[in-house]
Amino acid sequence: MLNIAITAGGTSEDIDGIRKLTNVSTGLLGWHCLEAVLDYFHADNRSDFHLFYIFTGTAFRKELNEEQLPFVDFVPVTDAESVYKAVDELTKKVPVDYFIHSMAISDFTFAYAVSTDELAKEICGLQKDGTAVRDVLENPASRYDVSEKISSEDDIIMGLKRTKKVIPLIKQNNPNTFLVGFKLLKEVSEEELVDVANQLAGKNQCDMVFANELAHLSENGHSGVLLKSGKAIARPVGKKQIAEAIVTEMMKL
Amino acid sequence: MLNIAITAGGTSEDIDGIRKLTNVSTGLLGWHCLEAVLDYFHADNRSDFHLFYIFTGTAFRKELNEEQLPFVDFVPVTDAESVYKAVDELTKKVPVDYFIHSMAISDFTFAYAVSTDELAKEICGLQKDGTAVRDVLENPASRYDVSEKISSEDDIIMGLKRTKKVIPLIKQNNPNTFLVGFKLLKEVSEEELVDVANQLAGKNQCDMVFANELAHLSENGHSGVLLKSGKAIARPVGKKQIAEAIVTEMMKL
Repeated sequence: MLNIAITAGGTSEDIDGIRKLTNVSTGLLGWHCLEAVLDYFHADNRSDFHLFYIFTGTAFRKELNEEQLPFVDFVPVTDAESVYKAVDELTKKVPVDYFIHSMAISDFTFAYAVSTDELAKEICGLQKDGTAVRDVLENPASRYDVSEKISSEDDIIMGLKRTKKVIPLIKQNNPNTFLVGFKLLKEVSEEELVDVANQLAGKNQCDMVFANELAHLSENGHSGVLLKSGKAIARPVGKKQIAEAIVTEMMKL
Repeated sequence: MLNIAITAGGTSEDIDGIRKLTNVSTGLLGWHCLEAVLDYFHADNRSDFHLFYIFTGTAFRKELNEEQLPFVDFVPVTDAESVYKAVDELTKKVPVDYFIHSMAISDFTFAYAVSTDELAKEICGLQKDGTAVRDVLENPASRYDVSEKISSEDDIIMGLKRTKKVIPLIKQNNPNTFLVGFKLLKEVSEEELVDVANQLAGKNQCDMVFANELAHLSENGHSGVLLKSGKAIARPVGKKQIAEAIVTEMMKL
């Protein structure tokens, strides 16, 4: 039995119950990966696999047919913290063989909001002291209370703190998982893109990385470089083609 | 000929090309209002009307049928600024008779992001001076460049500046428009909700306001108070019922 996990979509960090911090991810590439996996096993008439699909509310989904449904567990998540928990739980419970981690998880979550004026006053009231300013910027006393809706009477400053990284969990919990990571960069040359993606592959122990550029994300035009052991092994164009290239290369092992 | 405009969905403010500031609005209530207007005129076999539907990318939409399509102009928008432009353009060009302004427009748009450490250092380098601190909080020199993706190596501070209010445009451009506004509040009693909604109605010259509470937003359970001249005239439950109540009351005039 082969266990395959896919994460898809963009997370959403709650700010004040109404406002949210999200990102451009549509979940389309993750969905194409799910379909490519189903097609791969279906073509060989194999049923010795199970898929775990961890997805956010805004991630693209279609109805699966009756034959496909029994092979997929759907795991809904919302913010970065919920993804951390879901991945940790899954990878502790299930010996995942292949993990396609295409979800765009927020690097930051909401810490506080404060009126710019109030924060300026608070800082001016301090003794001139670096630590004190840093402390105020981390946790201003003049911040809005969590139960308040942020007022639009003044400009605001929002403090964002880093979320816990999800990707290291995968190999920590199952060192033998074949891990496919993704790297999205902005305004870089292909050389830089490949460099950064290879650094990431090393740091997060990815066995394969799909590296792409923000300017090249449309459904049919989506392009990028599939990297394995630091080398470009495919340059698929189109989300469906990217998903097929990832699944084909991954299943070669 | 009656001209009716509806705004629907939540805006999305770009942060760095990848991250976005959005909100919980689904656009469902706006869509139900569109359907309620079509049903209202259809029931009387009337074709002396035209609908302008200003909507965001995440707003719920269905396909209209061939009979309905000629009566609706769809106007896509993205962020608060694009809504401002679209509403200004439409209300200058078309004498709108009824305007249902259900869109959740961001009060804030992205101004800058800066590493918390860098900002603390920058502030500590200042002469102790209130204006200087305020200036730095508005526009820190250590901010990320617009072309950079924000690094996740440190916590960040995000400056948000207020967007231009869209609602005053509507009566400025057409003083005779019947304007329906919406007020969403959080953790307030019905008394407070009605008070705040009536203040808003006065300030923005709304002829009718639907006031609702964040805790009461589900498709079938969505509830709130429809206010006219400061008085509750209906308490519909369910998005379809709210839309019908708004359209019926609005068309009484």
